[in-house]
Amino acid sequence: MPTAAIIAIGSEMLGPVRVDTNSLKITALLESFAVPLVRKAIVGDSKGDLVAEIRFALQGAGILITTGGLGPTEDDLTREALAEALGMELERDEAIVEKLLARFAARGLEMPEVNKRQANVFPGQETLANDLGTAPGFHLEHDGKHIWVFPGVPRELEWMLETYLGPWLEQSSGGRSRYRRVLKIAGLTESGVEEMLKPYYDRRGGELLTILSSPGSVEIHLTSDGSEAEAARQIAQREKEILEIFGERVYGYDSDTLESVVGALLSQRGETLAVAESCTGGLLGSRITDVAGSSSYFLGGAICYTGEAKIAMAGVDPELIREHGQVSEQVAHALASGIRARFGTTWGVGITGIAGPGGGTPEKPVGTVHIAVSGPGVMKHRKISWASSRALVKWYSTQQALDLLRRCAIASQIEN
Amino acid sequence: MPTAAIIAIGSEMLGPVRVDTNSLKITALLESFAVPLVRKAIVGDSKGDLVAEIRFALQGAGILITTGGLGPTEDDLTREALAEALGMELERDEAIVEKLLARFAARGLEMPEVNKRQANVFPGQETLANDLGTAPGFHLEHDGKHIWVFPGVPRELEWMLETYLGPWLEQSSGGRSRYRRVLKIAGLTESGVEEMLKPYYDRRGGELLTILSSPGSVEIHLTSDGSEAEAARQIAQREKEILEIFGERVYGYDSDTLESVVGALLSQRGETLAVAESCTGGLLGSRITDVAGSSSYFLGGAICYTGEAKIAMAGVDPELIREHGQVSEQVAHALASGIRARFGTTWGVGITGIAGPGGGTPEKPVGTVHIAVSGPGVMKHRKISWASSRALVKWYSTQQALDLLRRCAIASQIEN
Repeated sequence: MPTAAIIAIGSEMLGPVRVDTNSLKITALLESFAVPLVRKAIVGDSKGDLVAEIRFALQGAGILITTGGLGPTEDDLTREALAEALGMELERDEAIVEKLLARFAARGLEMPEVNKRQANVFPGQETLANDLGTAPGFHLEHDGKHIWVFPGVPRELEWMLETYLGPWLEQSSGGRSRYRRVLKIAGLTESGVEEMLKPYYDRRGGELLTILSSPGSVEIHLTSDGSEAEAARQIAQREKEILEIFGERVYGYDSDTLESVVGALLSQRGETLAVAESCTGGLLGSRITDVAGSSSYFLGGAICYTGEAKIAMAGVDPELIREHGQVSEQVAHALASGIRARFGTTWGVGITGIAGPGGGTPEKPVGTVHIAVSGPGVMKHRKISWASSRALVKWYSTQQALDLLRRCAIASQIEN
Repeated sequence: MPTAAIIAIGSEMLGPVRVDTNSLKITALLESFAVPLVRKAIVGDSKGDLVAEIRFALQGAGILITTGGLGPTEDDLTREALAEALGMELERDEAIVEKLLARFAARGLEMPEVNKRQANVFPGQETLANDLGTAPGFHLEHDGKHIWVFPGVPRELEWMLETYLGPWLEQSSGGRSRYRRVLKIAGLTESGVEEMLKPYYDRRGGELLTILSSPGSVEIHLTSDGSEAEAARQIAQREKEILEIFGERVYGYDSDTLESVVGALLSQRGETLAVAESCTGGLLGSRITDVAGSSSYFLGGAICYTGEAKIAMAGVDPELIREHGQVSEQVAHALASGIRARFGTTWGVGITGIAGPGGGTPEKPVGTVHIAVSGPGVMKHRKISWASSRALVKWYSTQQALDLLRRCAIASQIEN
């Protein structure tokens, strides 16, 4: 299998605002067929730079994938630069002109002359129809190298990768040959995970295992090369050993999120959920409702940014607030059980804390958050003390709340 | 001023998980001194690839900036690759060896032999001490080109850019010379903005103006080169002309967000806010509470994911739901005025819609969202019909809700 290179084309990605994220989708696809990617480059809309870049990339790689620069404007130079780099001439494809004209006519518009540039093709190219936009892509074989040219609009690119590049890689590589399994862990830091992995490392070494962490979640990536059966066997064995170490701390796999895992648990069991949020301001509800189908188990909740709101919207006893303060274990419990009673749900979650940057005190500094889960015969609490930015305190609190709810739901399942 | 190129070094950035974001900090710095960046490349930890990349980059740029590959391990090849690319020999700097030894000794550790590689230097290099980590960087002049070599750890890099590269650019360019002003527009698409800018383009051309769009917001970036006073004058003049075209559609500047602008409006005026959210599930409340100090104007709200919750938590009349359905202008109004009454706030916002992917009907397809704002003598409504992903429908709905609230607040200010 040859190596690959990517060129992302567009001056906007050389400024301080935009970063190229398209290449992540391409690298994921290349990885699954074990095609080594040797380099990625980002070049502006300058023909000279682009010609040099294409020539350089083709020296080092057998597959070149470009994104962007296929639109109708003067700035869109991918075709012309490629023609110069390869020493080829473009021809006009009248069939594409017809299609473009029809697309404009269907909208009652006249096509600007400049758009005809999108119908310029290379002799022998395989034109890749773009069902989601105007700019078609193409695939060209030249001197034994494969050049794949795609538009830069992310959803168009994604569709075209799946429709054209994926099947071609599958065919030319003789099938998928690298597999990745991701185990996701909550409630531990990256160094905590490293520590617990020591016996595993001693036995197996660190090869083909990567740890990635983000606030409130640590991922263990296991990869394996080879036939599907062999890779599956290898990964399953290592996964088993890791599960023995981490147990229920592993909350999910691959594209799972805490909210999707909690959602799957609740909907399997026909249980329901309501939330009462103070410092997270609605983020917990928003994450829960990011999951398609969440209306089957999530009934709603209250955002209680004041003491009065906690009393009026979630039925918290004013006495508790007077005695313990709004940010306290007692009030978190009252929010969870109060919202559960108000909505008549199986589960209630309460969050109250200080997201900062203001509002901290010596006893309750910024980052102090109390989380409670109330359920059938269950009342659990976690306290977080994690000085960080407002956004991270909010995020981390919802991670912890979802994880506590997950653990409570699993425990109640085992008990019942 | 010469042109610049960036090489980010590290195999992890060629996989499907990590993206190079260091370059954004470098590009922002280069931009403020009007140094054109011609390309960015990402290369793995392979000496051959790295040598070729460095040679190619130096052909097209007068300033080369690299990040990463400076650590002590076998994978860290930046020095060796650079030596080969430039045809130079590395020398061991015993002063650096001493510093490294002292750093290890201070922690009671013995330094592995391999770490001495970090003390290999180029004859004539300016060593750049790294106060935040072990790997120093360096600056080298070679054949009239300037090569800046930095570590890849983001916070170390950031510190070194500020400490070394910024002052050098300032000195060699004769001071900061490019300024950027961003105007942010809501309620128009990118093509709508382009359309309205026509008279401006006719007068001034499109130079030094860039349009960037994201769901529910379009940004106009104005840049100007020259002295600070001259740039400020030029940008102010162009900004004025653009404000004449877009008026109140411009909701903010530079780092403003709709939620920060709404927050500033409300807190200036001592007004308060509550929200009742259905399909956005808490996202509106979460965005409002992303703003530090939002507790001074945001009291809370209800997440009403069912009809019962709309009735119980926001006081919606069941009759309205029976008659018009949960997703209707009438119910959006009732949510806004109901939550406003319940919290006793100046303003109430109601959102009800279908985020999808399920739940759509021919009359009310996925992406149908009704938004209402209730305030003193004010009741406004917007309907959105925007078929998209669940996440985007949620986001776009909150953009529209915040913008409608902003427009209502401004209008009521003018009236009173």
